[in-house]
This record gives sequence, structure tokens and C-alpha cells, in this order.
Amino acid sequence: MTLIDGKKISDQIKAEIAAQVEQMLAEGKKRPHLAAILVGHDGGSETYVAHKVKACEQCGFKSTLIRFEDNITEQTLLDRIAALNADPDIDGFIVQLPLPRHISEQKIIEAIDPAKDVDGFHPQNVGRMAIGLPCFLSATPAGIIELLSRYNIDTRGKHCVVLGRSNIVGKPVATLMMQKAAPGNATVTVCHSATPNIAEITRQADIIIAALGQPGFVTADMVKDQAVIIDVGTTRVPDPTRKSGFRLRGDVDFDNVAPRCSYITPVPGGVGPMTIVSLMKNTLQAAQAKN
Amino acid sequence: MTLIDGKKISDQIKAEIAAQVEQMLAEGKKRPHLAAILVGHDGGSETYVAHKVKACEQCGFKSTLIRFEDNITEQTLLDRIAALNADPDIDGFIVQLPLPRHISEQKIIEAIDPAKDVDGFHPQNVGRMAIGLPCFLSATPAGIIELLSRYNIDTRGKHCVVLGRSNIVGKPVATLMMQKAAPGNATVTVCHSATPNIAEITRQADIIIAALGQPGFVTADMVKDQAVIIDVGTTRVPDPTRKSGFRLRGDVDFDNVAPRCSYITPVPGGVGPMTIVSLMKNTLQAAQAKN
Repeated sequence: MTLIDGKKISDQIKAEIAAQVEQMLAEGKKRPHLAAILVGHDGGSETYVAHKVKACEQCGFKSTLIRFEDNITEQTLLDRIAALNADPDIDGFIVQLPLPRHISEQKIIEAIDPAKDVDGFHPQNVGRMAIGLPCFLSATPAGIIELLSRYNIDTRGKHCVVLGRSNIVGKPVATLMMQKAAPGNATVTVCHSATPNIAEITRQADIIIAALGQPGFVTADMVKDQAVIIDVGTTRVPDPTRKSGFRLRGDVDFDNVAPRCSYITPVPGGVGPMTIVSLMKNTLQAAQAKN
Repeated sequence: MTLIDGKKISDQIKAEIAAQVEQMLAEGKKRPHLAAILVGHDGGSETYVAHKVKACEQCGFKSTLIRFEDNITEQTLLDRIAALNADPDIDGFIVQLPLPRHISEQKIIEAIDPAKDVDGFHPQNVGRMAIGLPCFLSATPAGIIELLSRYNIDTRGKHCVVLGRSNIVGKPVATLMMQKAAPGNATVTVCHSATPNIAEITRQADIIIAALGQPGFVTADMVKDQAVIIDVGTTRVPDPTRKSGFRLRGDVDFDNVAPRCSYITPVPGGVGPMTIVSLMKNTLQAAQAKN
């Protein structure tokens, strides 16, 4: 069994990006600049944004964090987005989700200029991804593809079972896995809450991508010998032994599943770090497209 | 075994649309207007466009057919598209594909205003469909969903196997079949040219949607008893007994497969007429959105 080390790969990619930034600066180009909008003080969002800011430093990007209290109006947020769209120094920006209930997330996402939408959530980028055109790939699916690529995991003609059909993981990763590309070219099955016989299907899978958000959902009896397991789940479960009071648990019962696998991602340290690195890659791509 | 009569359903829907158009006119609104651009004289394209013009008449739409010879420049076509985008009397328009090789189909598709893109091919509409937002659904996938709906075929939790991963049928119909909707909510598997064990997978399918363009590909031994079969294939095969010299063949070996099925679409007269009706529905929707 090989543990897929997302932390190591992500460090490697950040170093590659930093080298490319050095090269850009040496050519007289401007430093890539990512902005992040954070509304309110949700613990998870604070952590994610802090990780993103730190990743920008590691990649040699300039980063700007824009904070709003959670009583901000939708219009104020839309105005700020319009300003970022128009700002030539900003190569890309993200609005950290979730947003307070009185703000329409979809309206916010669609207000972002697709050319600066480094989260890849704008319908224009989602559609281009589905068609197979150049675009900003959504971060988590792109990170999964990158892991499969870096570990030279053969996906062609393999049966890939995706658990979950969310707009940000399940559906886009299913699309990427079926595209005529490498990694890709897999037979893809998408299971979800309405699937009555998930275990029967996962037992046929050469590759399982679990993105349900249900801790420990994938048990050893659901997995074929030598399967590849990608665990996207990151549910916070209470843990009084930790200073934070919680720990992250994946969708896979790691201890019992790992011995059966050929490859498996841990949680944390698997897909998570790759998600942030995908955002960095998109920001670099945005900066290069403008230069 | 029930034969899914796409011709009958499509006539029914056209009558429903015509009644809505009458209502719109009675309310003083303008008649919906669809334009179609046809480049060159490809036999298949001529037939499709003629069918679309006829369907417009049946629905009470105004239609305009714009013809170009196949030596037209890309720029001339782009200019015509810009004019249609700007023309307030045109509710929607299509550019019949395929186009001559010297013209980029993708560039043409992306030049169409998404609000008039009644074929649903623009990345903006493809992305909105994937996310589950209101949009113009691509015609063939929408026609398939409509057939399942009109025949009250239960899809929730069923295993739907899609054969083919094209941008205009396989991928979008897979997305629609997995959405939390009715019809939809199915477990969906997409097989394609790189799938080594298609028969093994189709034998597990409650619903097969065949969109490979390989006449007679789905044989009786590949189908579970009481499966639902949707045949999207329409390959022209030579037939000297016909005046046209050809007949249409589906992807399914109909004669041998039909006896095993609960429902099956014939070719022709199944999905084909529904595709045109979807275009009419999108045009009505475009006209209503503007009114």
C-alpha cells in the first residue's frame, strides 16, 4: 500500500510555482497577485483563508485579504467584486464560501469576471471544463487529477466510482475522470444519497473518490483489493485531546481500508493541501495569461 | 414492452407550445422568432434545418433561415451572429453544425449571446446546466428527460448507463440523470471507447442511454430483462430500397433487444423528434424571458 502524500506533492508544486514566479520577475513581469474576500469569522473559513495566504507567500505571490463583517449587504460585496474585476493589479480573486444567508452565493459567483475566477466556480469556467476547453479548473477536482498524475496512477479504462454529486467536487471530478485525457479516460459511475446499492458498486471500483462528507462511510467490505482510494472528506469531529477541540475525519475508514488498497490518501495531508495548490496554479495561469 | 413514441409526444408538445403562443399573441406579445444559420449544403444539415423550420410553423413561431455558401469566411459568420445577437426581433438562433473546416465551431458557439443560445451549446449554458441553474438545456439531453417524464418512467435510484461521452449528448445527459430532480436522481455510469467491459456494465443497467453512433452496438445479451432503452444513435446506412438511398439506424439492435425491455425508443421516431421539440421549448422560453 502506498500512502499518497498530498503534503509532499503540494510542497513540490509550490516550489515549482515559486521558481516560475522568479522567472517571471526576472523577465520584468509583475508578481502574481491573489485577493481573497472573507465575510464574517467562521472558524473553517478563517483557517482556509489563512492557509491560502500562507501558500501565496510560499509561491512568491502577492496576496490581499479583504475582510467584511457578516452584516455586509450583498450590494457592498458586489461593488467590491466589481472593483476587483476592474483592478489591473489583481490577477485572480476568490470569495471564501459559505456566505451569510442573506447573500446569494450564486449571484456573487456570477459577478466575478471569469478571467479572474481562480476558484473555477463561475458557470463559464464550469461549462468550459465540461466541454474540455482551457479554463480555471475547480480546485479540489484539479488537485485530485494532479495527485493521480504525480503518482503515475493508470486511470484509462479503469472503473472510477465517485461518491457524491456536489457542484464543487463530485460532478466536476466525474467529468474530468471521463474526459479523453491522462489522467482520465476512465469509466465513471456517480453514486449519491439516492443510490440504494452503493457497496455493490464500490466493490467494482478500481478507483474510489469519496466526497460525501460522511466520516468513515467507506468501510473495508466496500472496497476491492488493490483499489485506489481518494478521500475528499474533511468533517470536523469533536476531539477533546486536541487543542482545537476537533480533528478532521475523512469519508473513508482509513485504518481498515488502507491495508486493502494499492494507493490511498490520508486525511489530513491528502487532497486538502492539493486544493490550495490548485488555486495557486490557477492564479499563476491567470497572471501568465495577462502578461 | 412499451414503445416510446417520440413522434406522438413531440406532436403533443408542439400543440402545447402553439397554444401558449396563441395566448402570448392574445396578450399583445410578439410572436417567438427563431433564426437558423445554415452553411453549405450537407444533406443531413439540410434535412435537420428543414425539420426545424417546419416545427416552427407547427408551433406558431416565426422562423428565418439564413444561408451561406461553404466558402464563407469565419469573420462574415461572426458578423452575422453579432447582428442576430443585437436584433431585438430574434428571440433565439442556432448555427447548424458541422461547419466547414476553416471555421472554428467553438469560436462560433461562443460568439452567440447565451441569452439567445437556444441550442444550449455556449459554455455559459453548459455550466449553468451542470450546476443546476436555469438555462437553455442542450436539445437532445432535454428531449430524453422529457420522454422519461412523459412516460412516467421512474429513474430515482435506478442505475442509468450512458454509452458515449460527447459534449452534446453523453456528458450532459449523464449530468441531468444524476441531478436531484425528477426525472433524475439516478446512479449514473458513463462508458465510452476506452471502457473495456461495456457489456458487463450495461447488464447491470436499469436504463441504457446509447449515444455512440455505432449502429446495432447494443445487442440483446448486453441488456437486463425489463430495462429501459433510449437509443440516440442516428447513423445513415445505405439502403437501395429507399428513395433517399439510405435509412437511419440506431445504436441498438432493436429487433432482438426490444422483446427484453420494459420501454424502448425506436429509430427513427424516438429521440429524434424530441430533439427538435426541445429547441422549440428553448425558443419559447427565450421569447417569454424577453416579454
